[in-house]
Amino acid sequence: MKKVAVIMGSDSDLPVVEKAITTLKELEIPTEVHVFSAHRTPAEAKAFTENAADNGFGVLIAAAGKAAHLAGALAANTVLPVIGIPVKSSTLDGLDALLSTVQMPSGIPVATVAIDGSANAALLAAEILAVSDDALRDKLRALRQKGTETVLAKNRAIEEKYNG
Amino acid sequence: MKKVAVIMGSDSDLPVVEKAITTLKELEIPTEVHVFSAHRTPAEAKAFTENAADNGFGVLIAAAGKAAHLAGALAANTVLPVIGIPVKSSTLDGLDALLSTVQMPSGIPVATVAIDGSANAALLAAEILAVSDDALRDKLRALRQKGTETVLAKNRAIEEKYNG
Amino acid sequence: MKKVAVIMGSDSDLPVVEKAITTLKELEIPTEVHVFSAHRTPAEAKAFTENAADNGFGVLIAAAGKAAHLAGALAANTVLPVIGIPVKSSTLDGLDALLSTVQMPSGIPVATVAIDGSANAALLAAEILAVSDDALRDKLRALRQKGTETVLAKNRAIEEKYNG
Amino acid sequence: MKKVAVIMGSDSDLPVVEKAITTLKELEIPTEVHVFSAHRTPAEAKAFTENAADNGFGVLIAAAGKAAHLAGALAANTVLPVIGIPVKSSTLDGLDALLSTVQMPSGIPVATVAIDGSANAALLAAEILAVSDDALRDKLRALRQKGTETVLAKNRAIEEKYNG
Amino acid sequence: MKKVAVIMGSDSDLPVVEKAITTLKELEIPTEVHVFSAHRTPAEAKAFTENAADNGFGVLIAAAGKAAHLAGALAANTVLPVIGIPVKSSTLDGLDALLSTVQMPSGIPVATVAIDGSANAALLAAEILAVSDDALRDKLRALRQKGTETVLAKNRAIEEKYNG
Amino acid sequence: MKKVAVIMGSDSDLPVVEKAITTLKELEIPTEVHVFSAHRTPAEAKAFTENAADNGFGVLIAAAGKAAHLAGALAANTVLPVIGIPVKSSTLDGLDALLSTVQMPSGIPVATVAIDGSANAALLAAEILAVSDDALRDKLRALRQKGTETVLAKNRAIEEKYNG
Amino acid sequence: MKKVAVIMGSDSDLPVVEKAITTLKELEIPTEVHVFSAHRTPAEAKAFTENAADNGFGVLIAAAGKAAHLAGALAANTVLPVIGIPVKSSTLDGLDALLSTVQMPSGIPVATVAIDGSANAALLAAEILAVSDDALRDKLRALRQKGTETVLAKNRAIEEKYNG
Amino acid sequence: MKKVAVIMGSDSDLPVVEKAITTLKELEIPTEVHVFSAHRTPAEAKAFTENAADNGFGVLIAAAGKAAHLAGALAANTVLPVIGIPVKSSTLDGLDALLSTVQMPSGIPVATVAIDGSANAALLAAEILAVSDDALRDKLRALRQKGTETVLAKNRAIEEKYNG
Repeated sequence: MKKVAVIMGSDSDLPVVEKAITTLKELEIPTEVHVFSAHRTPAEAKAFTENAADNGFGVLIAAAGKAAHLAGALAANTVLPVIGIPVKSSTLDGLDALLSTVQMPSGIPVATVAIDGSANAALLAAEILAVSDDALRDKLRALRQKGTETVLAKNRAIEEKYNG
Repeated sequence: MKKVAVIMGSDSDLPVVEKAITTLKELEIPTEVHVFSAHRTPAEAKAFTENAADNGFGVLIAAAGKAAHLAGALAANTVLPVIGIPVKSSTLDGLDALLSTVQMPSGIPVATVAIDGSANAALLAAEILAVSDDALRDKLRALRQKGTETVLAKNRAIEEKYNG
Repeated sequence: MKKVAVIMGSDSDLPVVEKAITTLKELEIPTEVHVFSAHRTPAEAKAFTENAADNGFGVLIAAAGKAAHLAGALAANTVLPVIGIPVKSSTLDGLDALLSTVQMPSGIPVATVAIDGSANAALLAAEILAVSDDALRDKLRALRQKGTETVLAKNRAIEEKYNG
Repeated sequence: MKKVAVIMGSDSDLPVVEKAITTLKELEIPTEVHVFSAHRTPAEAKAFTENAADNGFGVLIAAAGKAAHLAGALAANTVLPVIGIPVKSSTLDGLDALLSTVQMPSGIPVATVAIDGSANAALLAAEILAVSDDALRDKLRALRQKGTETVLAKNRAIEEKYNG
Repeated sequence: MKKVAVIMGSDSDLPVVEKAITTLKELEIPTEVHVFSAHRTPAEAKAFTENAADNGFGVLIAAAGKAAHLAGALAANTVLPVIGIPVKSSTLDGLDALLSTVQMPSGIPVATVAIDGSANAALLAAEILAVSDDALRDKLRALRQKGTETVLAKNRAIEEKYNG
Repeated sequence: MKKVAVIMGSDSDLPVVEKAITTLKELEIPTEVHVFSAHRTPAEAKAFTENAADNGFGVLIAAAGKAAHLAGALAANTVLPVIGIPVKSSTLDGLDALLSTVQMPSGIPVATVAIDGSANAALLAAEILAVSDDALRDKLRALRQKGTETVLAKNRAIEEKYNG
Repeated sequence: MKKVAVIMGSDSDLPVVEKAITTLKELEIPTEVHVFSAHRTPAEAKAFTENAADNGFGVLIAAAGKAAHLAGALAANTVLPVIGIPVKSSTLDGLDALLSTVQMPSGIPVATVAIDGSANAALLAAEILAVSDDALRDKLRALRQKGTETVLAKNRAIEEKYNG
Repeated sequence: MKKVAVIMGSDSDLPVVEKAITTLKELEIPTEVHVFSAHRTPAEAKAFTENAADNGFGVLIAAAGKAAHLAGALAANTVLPVIGIPVKSSTLDGLDALLSTVQMPSGIPVATVAIDGSANAALLAAEILAVSDDALRDKLRALRQKGTETVLAKNRAIEEKYNG
């Protein structure tokens, strides 16, 4: 199976990114984790990305805050799908990272998920890989079903408490 | 090759969506176009989406404005990757559609592109299909290269004019 | 008397929603509480809503955060009045839920109250039922009068303290 | 049948409000139209509102722009449901009117629809009256069905053009 | 000397408003404090305001949060200058109260100060009274001078610490 | 009677400011008009402001766009009331000018009116002068009454057209 | 004298950027103009920037819209001062470009000017070069003086018209 | 070497500003620190700024919150480069300070960095001085290199932990 790379712009993004890593692990998708900065280590980010397809990666996930250029900078160097996670920082409640990630110019797409939406980034990566992998799609459907059942169970608990 | 569905919430979204259709055509990706409304024709939207994988679709693109629920509503019924295009309407400059599309709750991802970012939605769909399709990837690389050359040509024109 | 359904998208919305439940109880309006997710349990949400009028409901209240589609998704399946409570989550201070709830396209209205405006959602539901229920209207007027007297009492306390 | 009052804060709001009037007429709901200003004619607004229930009104619709106080000012004087239409003016793209209308304090609800969402205000008023009026509910269902068929027809046209 | 009324929409606004009261006291301006709600006690607010000029008031200060209608509602009933303090509440960081207070329609001005800008509301009221009161103007100049000296002293402390 | 100064940061603000000038003229308030820039002609702005009280001015009105410092810069040099008109420019829809004008730090108030709210700035200046001028207050009441009658006339026209 | 490079992300930015070019020309600062895209021609952008200091450049100006990464991408490859001009595009009124340009992470500064603030970008570049160039500083002071005189002349014209 | 002045509008900005001071010290750039208020001590701010070039300063850094006029007010009195740090205060998450600092009118540039972006303000000041100071440029390159190595080290730690 193709690998997913989870790349964060700073190791301070790790608390947000961890949910993506555990979700990918839960789906048994081979995952690598890296810290690359669009501004501090652009050469390393570029080298990694240019070789990502050849190195067996299928999808890249990039998490960054503030003027979040990381996902776009990776996307400029590959035609692999790049998923962007805007990370909320100490000012502006994540709006800066969201707009910096999603408002990409024509030609270089970034698949953007919600601010701090780390679990969904992993699920989206899995959905992308599952386009050509029926076993993975079945796992995703099972996970979806589990999510449904969790909500149904919570509904039953609430109904018993209030509607009893 | 798997098909891409381009779905708009209203036929008034067609001017925005057209760029996605032509881009997919340029890449020779089989494409279907539909009008489904999350609110006016939810049953048809649901039926289409639940059967989309079986009907040979690999990716769904959904464009909608205002409280743009379409992409999320489709995503709730499939584990195929769903790409959301927030469409600018007459008030709030597209911010409402952007937040309604991208801020999805954990469990149901939508791959969001820029407001009115129709070309990038098509390119992202192509990148997703190309994960398991080397020929398509080569086409994407060629298109990328063409984009680069366009900018280089414009640069030469500007340099000649200003730097003499 | 027709019933009111209080529906939350996730049981994490319960702290916000509780004020609606207690207000409805205070007004002796028969109330049911449910957890339905527009994305996790769309089938259950749809089934409940389509049968709501036949099952004796007069008004539906829906509370959800982020890309808050719940109220709109319910409204798509009924012509009963649907009241939407946008719930503040960890980013964007509730603006995402507000715009996702209120900016509904033409044809499918959602009666939106303030972010986390749970008490007002209950009062609005009561006002709607009271259009054809004079006894309930009297209760609402009495509650309004009580609210007025509370402010007057606070005013007297402040006046005594400061204006002596 | 109870009447609906459509009240605008200024006659410059008429182009927005007209869609509400025609929608109510289409549903054969008795309607009155007024211009009352929360700031210019507060006495008249108050007198009208206090007597609205006795004068046979079931729902009030209020449209205003900028610091849109009209809906809230009416709501302070009645326990009839008050629907607020935030009107976009020359600055801030309607955000000021939206927040001024929807962010009501606890105790005095306003059922807010989208910026310039005049048709939905009328539909919401009809839904409220239809809670105790089965004939009106049938009309609303028919109108909803017509809306669905319009989208289906547009879908067929698009499908023929693109998927032929 | 004419009096200043400090009016809050809810006694929960007192922590914000207290700075206005102490500033007015420091300037020896006769002050009355009241709790009037534009929505809960509109009759009392109206009665107070209509008689305010006759009762010796020169300026009204109104503090309110969320869809802050209080200052505008008072201004509709008097041609005394009304100063509005937008109060930050639990969502939207005060933006709702700011826009609801400042974006008044033509004809009914509200002199708006910063979000939670209670001290400045008092100083502005004093400046207004001082237009025809030279002694009060001298006090304001002295207070301004004191403010200047405070900054100069802080500057000296910082300069010693860092530039010494 | 004390004079009002209407000061604009650039003569491009004249179309916005003209309504203030005509309103002051209508109220027969002696008015001077100036162009002073907080950044281009700070010395002239300072000199004018420091001498404004001695030169017979009672109120200053300042209109500026973008990072609108003009009102605050004037307020720093006088204890006369300074009214700020935020002017909408080509980007950000007036939000920049509004926040730059209203969010003044403690100690230096600016009485802010709506974006482009030029008529209200003039009315507020008149209200301030009228605190000690009963004749002017009567004029303001008459103008207010005229405004009320205009709305009532429009109401009658609308009522005849729609309710006839 | 060191040169200034004016770099735009797309030749569609030329109308905004032209004012920077003419201002630099007016100040007789040697200027080069280029089109480099952070995403389309990252290699060319990087090569130019890494060699900019050696090639005699003292300051880089970068103009870009939407998720405006250009200035930050250049800044990552040089310790020359980089000035960013956020360019307004068809949605969000320039806010996206502003936040993407200014909210740079610690370590890689971008000197950001106003949205579409092209003239100021040129003046800032000139001020930077003038730190070690007294003749250029004199030119800037003369230009500043000319700006002052323009405002003074406009003031005289307005004063004559209105205060005459 | 020319000096850098770090000026804050209030000593409450010191926690934000301290990072600028330590960064300048780390680069061995002679630095002075001052508290000047655009509104409380405008005369001192003006006197300092007008003489700053003659007193050996090369760059001014100004930090202020809310309606942050300080940087612009300094820039009006000098053609030295002025760097503005918008400081986040208790409301609006720094947006007010950002817009008040960056949206300067044509003619008077302010080089704006991120909200609370104190370290970058110092680095930008150093980059400006380094335009004519090769030794300082070498120091900046070394610091940049150190930053790169820090990220690389963090990357190795993360890689070992997750990819091991």
